[in-house]
Amino acid sequence: MTATYRTEHDFLGEKQIPNDVYYGVQTLRAVENFCITGITNAHEPLFIEAFACVKKAAALANRDCGILDTNIADAIVFACEEIIAGKYHDQFVTDLIQGGAGTSVNMNTNEVIANIGLEHLGFAKGAYDHLHPNNHVNCSQSTNDAYPTALRIALYKKTGLLIAALEELKSTFAAKGIEFNNILKMGRTQLQDAVPMTLGQEFHGFATSIAKEVEQLLEARKEIAECNMGATAIGTRINVPDGYPELCTKYLAEISEIPVTLADDLIEATCDTGAYVHVSGALKRTAIKISKICNDLRLLSSGPRCGLNEINLPKMQAGSSIMPGKVNPVIPEVMNQVAFYVIGADVTITMAAEAGQLQLNVMEPVIAFSLFTSLAYMTNAVHTLTSKCVTGITANPEVCRDMVLNSIGIVTALNPILGYEITASIAKEALATGKSVHDIAVEEKKYITQEKWDEIYSIENLIAPKFINQ
Amino acid sequence: MTATYRTEHDFLGEKQIPNDVYYGVQTLRAVENFCITGITNAHEPLFIEAFACVKKAAALANRDCGILDTNIADAIVFACEEIIAGKYHDQFVTDLIQGGAGTSVNMNTNEVIANIGLEHLGFAKGAYDHLHPNNHVNCSQSTNDAYPTALRIALYKKTGLLIAALEELKSTFAAKGIEFNNILKMGRTQLQDAVPMTLGQEFHGFATSIAKEVEQLLEARKEIAECNMGATAIGTRINVPDGYPELCTKYLAEISEIPVTLADDLIEATCDTGAYVHVSGALKRTAIKISKICNDLRLLSSGPRCGLNEINLPKMQAGSSIMPGKVNPVIPEVMNQVAFYVIGADVTITMAAEAGQLQLNVMEPVIAFSLFTSLAYMTNAVHTLTSKCVTGITANPEVCRDMVLNSIGIVTALNPILGYEITASIAKEALATGKSVHDIAVEEKKYITQEKWDEIYSIENLIAPKFINQ
Amino acid sequence: MTATYRTEHDFLGEKQIPNDVYYGVQTLRAVENFCITGITNAHEPLFIEAFACVKKAAALANRDCGILDTNIADAIVFACEEIIAGKYHDQFVTDLIQGGAGTSVNMNTNEVIANIGLEHLGFAKGAYDHLHPNNHVNCSQSTNDAYPTALRIALYKKTGLLIAALEELKSTFAAKGIEFNNILKMGRTQLQDAVPMTLGQEFHGFATSIAKEVEQLLEARKEIAECNMGATAIGTRINVPDGYPELCTKYLAEISEIPVTLADDLIEATCDTGAYVHVSGALKRTAIKISKICNDLRLLSSGPRCGLNEINLPKMQAGSSIMPGKVNPVIPEVMNQVAFYVIGADVTITMAAEAGQLQLNVMEPVIAFSLFTSLAYMTNAVHTLTSKCVTGITANPEVCRDMVLNSIGIVTALNPILGYEITASIAKEALATGKSVHDIAVEEKKYITQEKWDEIYSIENLIAPKFINQ
Amino acid sequence: MTATYRTEHDFLGEKQIPNDVYYGVQTLRAVENFCITGITNAHEPLFIEAFACVKKAAALANRDCGILDTNIADAIVFACEEIIAGKYHDQFVTDLIQGGAGTSVNMNTNEVIANIGLEHLGFAKGAYDHLHPNNHVNCSQSTNDAYPTALRIALYKKTGLLIAALEELKSTFAAKGIEFNNILKMGRTQLQDAVPMTLGQEFHGFATSIAKEVEQLLEARKEIAECNMGATAIGTRINVPDGYPELCTKYLAEISEIPVTLADDLIEATCDTGAYVHVSGALKRTAIKISKICNDLRLLSSGPRCGLNEINLPKMQAGSSIMPGKVNPVIPEVMNQVAFYVIGADVTITMAAEAGQLQLNVMEPVIAFSLFTSLAYMTNAVHTLTSKCVTGITANPEVCRDMVLNSIGIVTALNPILGYEITASIAKEALATGKSVHDIAVEEKKYITQEKWDEIYSIENLIAPKFINQ
Repeated sequence: MTATYRTEHDFLGEKQIPNDVYYGVQTLRAVENFCITGITNAHEPLFIEAFACVKKAAALANRDCGILDTNIADAIVFACEEIIAGKYHDQFVTDLIQGGAGTSVNMNTNEVIANIGLEHLGFAKGAYDHLHPNNHVNCSQSTNDAYPTALRIALYKKTGLLIAALEELKSTFAAKGIEFNNILKMGRTQLQDAVPMTLGQEFHGFATSIAKEVEQLLEARKEIAECNMGATAIGTRINVPDGYPELCTKYLAEISEIPVTLADDLIEATCDTGAYVHVSGALKRTAIKISKICNDLRLLSSGPRCGLNEINLPKMQAGSSIMPGKVNPVIPEVMNQVAFYVIGADVTITMAAEAGQLQLNVMEPVIAFSLFTSLAYMTNAVHTLTSKCVTGITANPEVCRDMVLNSIGIVTALNPILGYEITASIAKEALATGKSVHDIAVEEKKYITQEKWDEIYSIENLIAPKFINQ
Repeated sequence: MTATYRTEHDFLGEKQIPNDVYYGVQTLRAVENFCITGITNAHEPLFIEAFACVKKAAALANRDCGILDTNIADAIVFACEEIIAGKYHDQFVTDLIQGGAGTSVNMNTNEVIANIGLEHLGFAKGAYDHLHPNNHVNCSQSTNDAYPTALRIALYKKTGLLIAALEELKSTFAAKGIEFNNILKMGRTQLQDAVPMTLGQEFHGFATSIAKEVEQLLEARKEIAECNMGATAIGTRINVPDGYPELCTKYLAEISEIPVTLADDLIEATCDTGAYVHVSGALKRTAIKISKICNDLRLLSSGPRCGLNEINLPKMQAGSSIMPGKVNPVIPEVMNQVAFYVIGADVTITMAAEAGQLQLNVMEPVIAFSLFTSLAYMTNAVHTLTSKCVTGITANPEVCRDMVLNSIGIVTALNPILGYEITASIAKEALATGKSVHDIAVEEKKYITQEKWDEIYSIENLIAPKFINQ
Repeated sequence: MTATYRTEHDFLGEKQIPNDVYYGVQTLRAVENFCITGITNAHEPLFIEAFACVKKAAALANRDCGILDTNIADAIVFACEEIIAGKYHDQFVTDLIQGGAGTSVNMNTNEVIANIGLEHLGFAKGAYDHLHPNNHVNCSQSTNDAYPTALRIALYKKTGLLIAALEELKSTFAAKGIEFNNILKMGRTQLQDAVPMTLGQEFHGFATSIAKEVEQLLEARKEIAECNMGATAIGTRINVPDGYPELCTKYLAEISEIPVTLADDLIEATCDTGAYVHVSGALKRTAIKISKICNDLRLLSSGPRCGLNEINLPKMQAGSSIMPGKVNPVIPEVMNQVAFYVIGADVTITMAAEAGQLQLNVMEPVIAFSLFTSLAYMTNAVHTLTSKCVTGITANPEVCRDMVLNSIGIVTALNPILGYEITASIAKEALATGKSVHDIAVEEKKYITQEKWDEIYSIENLIAPKFINQ
Repeated sequence: MTATYRTEHDFLGEKQIPNDVYYGVQTLRAVENFCITGITNAHEPLFIEAFACVKKAAALANRDCGILDTNIADAIVFACEEIIAGKYHDQFVTDLIQGGAGTSVNMNTNEVIANIGLEHLGFAKGAYDHLHPNNHVNCSQSTNDAYPTALRIALYKKTGLLIAALEELKSTFAAKGIEFNNILKMGRTQLQDAVPMTLGQEFHGFATSIAKEVEQLLEARKEIAECNMGATAIGTRINVPDGYPELCTKYLAEISEIPVTLADDLIEATCDTGAYVHVSGALKRTAIKISKICNDLRLLSSGPRCGLNEINLPKMQAGSSIMPGKVNPVIPEVMNQVAFYVIGADVTITMAAEAGQLQLNVMEPVIAFSLFTSLAYMTNAVHTLTSKCVTGITANPEVCRDMVLNSIGIVTALNPILGYEITASIAKEALATGKSVHDIAVEEKKYITQEKWDEIYSIENLIAPKFINQ
């Protein structure tokens, strides 16, 4: 069988296009121009589907405004639905990092839709007189409104996936907080023994921390839902019929099932990247918080014999190719690394956002790439952390309790009774001599009675300290 | 006159303290330990005053809880008010970047308050039996609640100063947006000629952009108002009487005139740095946006003869030591540099936040330093940008208009009438031959009539394009 | 056909392994544990091959030290050579970002080699009694020396590919420097007209800039060639026969054709990430420099009618879905974005390097991931920039020259004759009145004669200014 | 006494200058324009002195080239020497972060030198006809060569101070390496017990690490010594007499006592910031390495009763305002924070370097600011770390040894004898049952004899393991 080709042309001339592909000449040029990451838009199904939502909404709005014939609009809508159904993802072949501010993926979408529509109407691929990528599919649009709008829809949905994963992590931590409710342990500040707490309080704290992240991601996501459909090239609504922007936005909200709204100032909206920076910042904050928690999990499970050994992480794999029996905290470790990726990506996004000039930010594709990968890696890693680590954490209650009772830090509870200076002298002596706080305070110096001691240092009071003074 | 000294001691031994200073032995050790930036807490009056608010609120709450005698509480309150009145700022001598998670500046505050209070009560400085830095001034507190709470109050107020400066910048841009309302100019995407717009639209866009920043800073600031008073060492409320946390928070809100609230989970709140990361992220976002605007101002004012020359920035100083007559956009340039500082500081804060371990983030002082300097430099630079640059910007309307009329980009307006392919061929010919779009479209090819041309390319339509097709 | 399985076991228990795969139980666990990026080690052929070089060198050294039988060593060597020949890349299935400091990819390698070797020796896969992944393939090794050593070899080679691409870019810029030798143009500082130069000088400067980058990358790469073979777990050479480290390193240098040396302090080398930070820093510096050049190319080609328009970049694709005839600088744009990626990745690497604890840096996989992707994207983008942009740049000599002659900046050349104050007054008047410098200096004010003017402002003198005073 | 003023004028008009100050009108405008950080150039004496070196070298070269009268040159030289002697530092009043690419501090220097020179010649300040800031002091110069050259000299010297501090730190670590030579302790990878080592090896590793940093900083510093004197405005040597660049560079090397060389390509050198990026990258690398060491010091000294407690840091101050007896690792903590500052500053420098456009990088002042503060804070912190922490570190040998003997990790030494699988089973049993490795391997399972055990686990062999197999 010989390969067959059709001839397409654009501003720069003609090119042969394999007849079985749905994209056209502009896509092919982009494929040739941008061999950078090897990661194409096909790797981001949500983005492709979001683009199809945008094109469908635009077609319906154009039809309603009377500038697109119904049969043309229908063909575009048909094609968009096919794409949303996942049938043509392999036709989205341009590199995620591309020059031209996304023109290539926009034209890729326009061409694929045109050719699906043409076949649906009974024409051959490439017969653009009947259904044109620019004149019809891209009608009343520019890359500069279609691309960021599709990006925002995809980001909104991907952020939702992360939020769901975080909710699950939060619940798992909360459950551990209850499970570890009665396990007394030493609190530490600056890695130095501080005062007692429970392991349950510590894990409940992790749950609180993640809950706050869910909240701030939900807040950050709001701004992402604002679109600039109808802005066309630079926000002046050039070539856009009256009423189209509002109509298109309304359709888009319905089709995407996202509360999409229209920006007030389309000029500003077209060059603005604030919402991306915001989401990236929120994502970075989440990464920081989870990385801190993973650092804690690794510290608390250090050992087994030469570390803190307060908790046990589930054993997931042999830890060493040379040290038999070694098991490592591999899941928190991979989470930490993803956090570092996200933090680095935030700097990439920062630079890209700052580099916008005049009426457009041409660096949007690297912002898209960075947010897509950050969100995906984070979501994967959070799922992994929850299911392969936190769920299976167990405690070593005796280890925890023994450290508390052996500590000098418990002297703090004597402060309200003896004052800072006397308690400090007890601590100092304990440290110098190796004696226990009890022996010095009760037996040697007789600063307090055994009864008072028992009141203060009952497990109940250590877990939930009451204010006790003379 | 011979210098006189008093002897103070702490956990580590005795030290001679010059008798005229209000701080004590712990402060002196900190001064010796931390010679890093040379920038002391005295450089942050709002921080010192916030600390005094915290100590005053704590004293009142302790008094109400019955664990501090009224005369002691009164003396502390007196001292705090003196500090808030600005009388003792020079006594805050520890480096802003310090180890110990802020213990040094907390103890500096405790010591200064104790000694002011002692003198007020008729005792000599250092007579801590009567009024003790730890037992009384720091009563029911730890550095780990007092320091972050004071920091948050100071940040809340400093963020307010920036917001006020941004409001002023926004109004100034908005006024220019109106002033330049009728100046037609070329819009540019990717530095390439796009389609026409007005200079007013561009400046109005700047105003919109800044308005969004004000909004998101206000949002970010909310979280900063949450405090953890009563958490003491690690959030377990050890050594804290019942009711104190709520009471102290209530007093603090009154004294500071900030809507301070108490965190639900004091364990989590004591090690959490999310609010700092949030404010830093919001600040970074603002820096990115203003830096982009300044880049635009520099581009638009480039020239005077070999650049875009659409606008003139006020001349602020001679621009060169060798090139006579050269004047540079020095104000946007300094704003850009401050933006870069803020962006770098966000990375510092990111690392510091991630480095928190277990029950405390010991890196808070560098977070404080970074936010204090970022907020101060930004506020200064925004004021400078408004008053020394934006206010005085003038336009070159003829330059702007001539570029539009000479452009090929105006061909876009023919799209709805002629379709993408024909208009592209006009553009291509114009580019190749140097001819004008008008000559090709109307005279040579007669694609449209002169009347249609006049309708489309009237100044009115260029400034506010209507949808025009066949 | 029914799938067949073999049973393997490790520290954690048994697992069924599809019989057609060469990896084993530990690899399978890693695949299940780390579903993060979807980018496996199979995407980095140079890394796989480097690992095979390491295992081959170790086998030969172990054989020479008498702790590995010759037939076992031969089987390992055979397997390594098969891998180096590219036959088993698809067997390297673990995610590039993984916990465990690379244990998974090391064990993946050990298992694949063992099974290839077993088949070569006539045994079934999984018959590890005869050839064991740990006891034989990993003999005298740990992940903690094998992984970083393989990483370094791969990075050395990948850096070499980038350097080659940069050499090509440098030569292309240098050729343009010669081509544009006689094109007089305006130099600009701070986007303001400064003094004349040639376009050739500007492009020659780009070549110089890239040449410096080649030099510093070569310098940075040196440190990468230092390995820690024989360090095993933590650098104490535990379980390593005398002479092995040196022997293994010697073999490795031969096999890899890289000047590999052995670190002096194996303890330090095993936890050190300085060389990665160095290479990343060097790479970031290159990214900064090329990004700046691309910014310049975009500025110089801005227009065509409303920008500087001094040069033309090759037209690579239609620039807009709505603006016919618009062509964008898509190649510099994609290069800029890759630069931002690299700069972000440097922050990721920074955090990962800082997070190392005690005897190992467990975050090495994300360092590997970041450097691999940064190097690959940069190399791709530099090739693209050279071949699809710089090679085809043309100049607009008349535009360039006219701007110079129309400028006020040329007044600077009068400085040595008239002094700063008088020349400043000429500039001021030219700016205010729109008159030319010539008219004011020669005709109106008669500061210099027409002859002197002609001497100073001859094209020859403008291109290569001589010092001319009274 | 009434203040007296002189009147000066510049391109923008007249201003009253207090008669007692040595700077003039352009400096005053800069002071008014740039109220940003409050940190003036007076805070960087090395920068002021470097500027004076540059001006002195230029004056001598101009004199030799015959374009500056000897008495004028002498007056300039006199003034420069006065400045180098430290007499006029308070006259350098412009903000370190300034627009105009350093024109303000260059003109500040020109004006101060002119007025010192004028008084020296018997004229009044401001009598610039006799000695002019631009025509004489700035002769053959531009800000664009004088500023970066002065910056490079200052950076070279400041880097030297850091290197000296690092040398001291290295020696201190090395001495501790010897002191702790015989202290057996557990090595840890991934915070899990690995295999034994000595505390001396660990501290020796720290010394090696710092030694590498000294080496790479020395390497990075080399490039800083390249200057562009004679480039003037953009590198075309406009208004510069033949021979001046080389002569000026030669004088500068003598005066500054730094191996200053002249760049080959002055066009490129004038806009290039590679050397700053390089030094910042090297500095960041050092920060990462020291931060990692400080993290280790904090881990190893964690406790005293609920942490690793292997070493004791010197007690520098009371560690808590509420927990008596608590002492914190405040010195490593402050070093960590400075490291984060430096890492953030590197991002600032990255953005500033990338933002350079065409013939100049206008963002150099924020690069200067960031490098000056980073170098100063690092140098201060390294001194502090050495003298207030590392010098006084002591070990807890029994704690260290007991953990080793109690560990499971020592099983690794049985690997060469028993193979990975059997040793893994021993480890597994030890972990599950709490038994010691010795009891299982020797007594229960009799895998090896007591004699073999004693050979392997002698202190000598643990400290310096030999390869032992059957």
